[in-house]
Amino acid sequence: MTERDDERTDRSAGPGDPSRRRWLARTMGAAAAATAGWLAPGATLANTPPEVPDWMKRLGFPVGDRPYGRPSDHEGHVVRRVIEGLSPSNHSTASFTPLGDLHGTLTPNGLVFERHHGGVPDIPPAEHRLMVHGLVERPLTFTMEDLLRFPAVSRIHFLECAANTVTERAGPNRESVQFTHGMLSSCEWTGVPLRRVLEEAGVRSGAKWVLAEGADAAGMTRSLPLENALDDALVVYAQNGERLRPEQGYPLRLVVPGLEANLSIKWLRRLEVGDKPWMTREETSKYSDLMPDGRARQFSLLQEAKSVITHPSAGHVLEGKGFREIRGLAWSGAGRVKAVEVSTDGGRHWRQATLHEPVLPKALTRFSLPWEWRGETAWLQSRVWDETGYLQPTREQLVAVRGETSIYHYNAIQTWKVAPTGEVTNERE
Amino acid sequence: MTERDDERTDRSAGPGDPSRRRWLARTMGAAAAATAGWLAPGATLANTPPEVPDWMKRLGFPVGDRPYGRPSDHEGHVVRRVIEGLSPSNHSTASFTPLGDLHGTLTPNGLVFERHHGGVPDIPPAEHRLMVHGLVERPLTFTMEDLLRFPAVSRIHFLECAANTVTERAGPNRESVQFTHGMLSSCEWTGVPLRRVLEEAGVRSGAKWVLAEGADAAGMTRSLPLENALDDALVVYAQNGERLRPEQGYPLRLVVPGLEANLSIKWLRRLEVGDKPWMTREETSKYSDLMPDGRARQFSLLQEAKSVITHPSAGHVLEGKGFREIRGLAWSGAGRVKAVEVSTDGGRHWRQATLHEPVLPKALTRFSLPWEWRGETAWLQSRVWDETGYLQPTREQLVAVRGETSIYHYNAIQTWKVAPTGEVTNERE
Repeated sequence: MTERDDERTDRSAGPGDPSRRRWLARTMGAAAAATAGWLAPGATLANTPPEVPDWMKRLGFPVGDRPYGRPSDHEGHVVRRVIEGLSPSNHSTASFTPLGDLHGTLTPNGLVFERHHGGVPDIPPAEHRLMVHGLVERPLTFTMEDLLRFPAVSRIHFLECAANTVTERAGPNRESVQFTHGMLSSCEWTGVPLRRVLEEAGVRSGAKWVLAEGADAAGMTRSLPLENALDDALVVYAQNGERLRPEQGYPLRLVVPGLEANLSIKWLRRLEVGDKPWMTREETSKYSDLMPDGRARQFSLLQEAKSVITHPSAGHVLEGKGFREIRGLAWSGAGRVKAVEVSTDGGRHWRQATLHEPVLPKALTRFSLPWEWRGETAWLQSRVWDETGYLQPTREQLVAVRGETSIYHYNAIQTWKVAPTGEVTNERE
Repeated sequence: MTERDDERTDRSAGPGDPSRRRWLARTMGAAAAATAGWLAPGATLANTPPEVPDWMKRLGFPVGDRPYGRPSDHEGHVVRRVIEGLSPSNHSTASFTPLGDLHGTLTPNGLVFERHHGGVPDIPPAEHRLMVHGLVERPLTFTMEDLLRFPAVSRIHFLECAANTVTERAGPNRESVQFTHGMLSSCEWTGVPLRRVLEEAGVRSGAKWVLAEGADAAGMTRSLPLENALDDALVVYAQNGERLRPEQGYPLRLVVPGLEANLSIKWLRRLEVGDKPWMTREETSKYSDLMPDGRARQFSLLQEAKSVITHPSAGHVLEGKGFREIRGLAWSGAGRVKAVEVSTDGGRHWRQATLHEPVLPKALTRFSLPWEWRGETAWLQSRVWDETGYLQPTREQLVAVRGETSIYHYNAIQTWKVAPTGEVTNERE
């Protein structure tokens, strides 16, 4: 097969699986000795069962040995990691999700990224209270039991720290997708629409903002526009089926889909309704975007569309030439992912990736593209369009408008270099 | 509001949220002193913030303290549980998912039900092999790396043991939904379509069945019809985003959506293609259905439509009268859930429950219905229709056809009794 045939097939097949027909043709029609498309060149042809391994010759560990399970010891490297030196104390820093080791679209609860400002409090759920007050008809205090009676909804949404990928603004920096993009996770969140809780208290006319306060030692507070509070925000008590983990706000948190995760106040204890923002530390000295002209964008809450290739990504090594999949994640705080394109030559040519169903709003969407690597130096990139028509920018486009001084909302196209050795690094052309 | 008004509103509103309009009307129009619909009668009216709790006055535990997280210690009761005495050794028994403590539709990996026959093996992934042989063009042996190169798909599916709910066939037996229905879990599974793996080896004409063998001490084997193998079966290496847990087949398992979970062979090491079933222990002395006439149904693989109310369910206690939600799970091995109805009077009257999106094929679907409990004795039931038109049977209907001798495929309507004290038990009228 010539390179030309390969390119044509891949380009014409569109968002299905471009190599499937060729691969089927090869497989089904091939002689017994031929290896087929997706099989690694080194794969074994065998006609006797593999030797019975040792672990079939002895009993394993019994049922019920681990009433609450944990991953295999062989997966001990798949953990959250803290960037050392980001903060003088680890009571206020971040711990990153290992995106390069994950599959599908959900983040297991044990690996959801963390960002705390005064450590993780231990809150007995029976003693926790949520107060709603301010511009309301009836100030109310809710117990956890009160909230569990309300109609519950479950929705899959991503949470992304506004500072995710800040390391890459000045140029390639970190050595893995865990540290470049790992302040990003996705869970099924269960709770009560914030709208219901506010309406129970009765929002008064003139109300425009809601203050949310956490019950941690930092007393984290953010001002949320009432419009967002009455839209799809949730008061959440469960993630991925079970009650919230302590690091994610046990027993109660806010989840504001699509907006910077700092708004999704953890250990939620107080909602105050008012007519203007409170100008807390987290919306003045932090979480505002310093522009090149010295002014700052404030309340720039939306997490705009972004994508990243997770397989292969920096730190991975391609074992041998041949067919493999390029896989990644795409998301948009504005709604659904519409399309993703992938380039293997640094953005000169783009091919449409397959989006894997279900494509949900404000949720991670998995994309993939079959790729035959012939041992060349490759520059892998992905870019996403969301349903509003927004296209993920290049770094140059983003920096031209917003400069290099802002810490937050860096969503530019990411590049991974594949060397002829198969080593994948965080480098640009 | 009279009982008559309540009934009419609930019946006419259909699958939306029947009490929402009434609740909104009450809330938004009510005087400041009135408590609104969903709020528990005992909820507090307050106009000063709750006292600053102790856990806001000291630092919590630092970021990164738990590189792989775990649930709050306050949730220590939410664990898998083994029914004692089911088997002489816990190397071959089952451990049940605590459905009455879970939310949404996903099962956290630490709580996925277990059923093993020789314990859980510890398999180093680099040494694991999958062999494909028998009626194929090219017998092949795959490493894990080989399989990871193939195009990956992720799908959310339930797995249910064929013996789930066997305890209830003779009459109410177990004291919680964990033990009546807890051999049921739902995950996002990631892997390679089994079809791809078989086509890579080249299935020969005359092939009709596939034998799957596990690498555990029991050497678990099942015969799978080729039709199912080429449909939506998956060779799986990840669940809910991370690699498989040991209890769920690390490093490789089969997932055959919609069919009894025993077919989804864990620790998958061998696939043999043949022209007839192998008549293994698991499809002769076990996992066949003994009928009243002394004959046995064999290869009755489909998990037919089923539903159960999880909140409230046996073991729960209703704290106070008033509005609350009835919540449950519905599923069908034949495809999507089409509708669920709920009765609070033992099946005399039924109301349509809300199905929560996304409703995925062969996946758990969460349903809910608002309910005002006035302190009466109530008999809670749910029944599901799937998209094929199949309706979940009553116990009487099921037993009339299949008798009481079969262990497997009991999917009848479940009843929970609510006593005037609020105690919920597993009793029938």
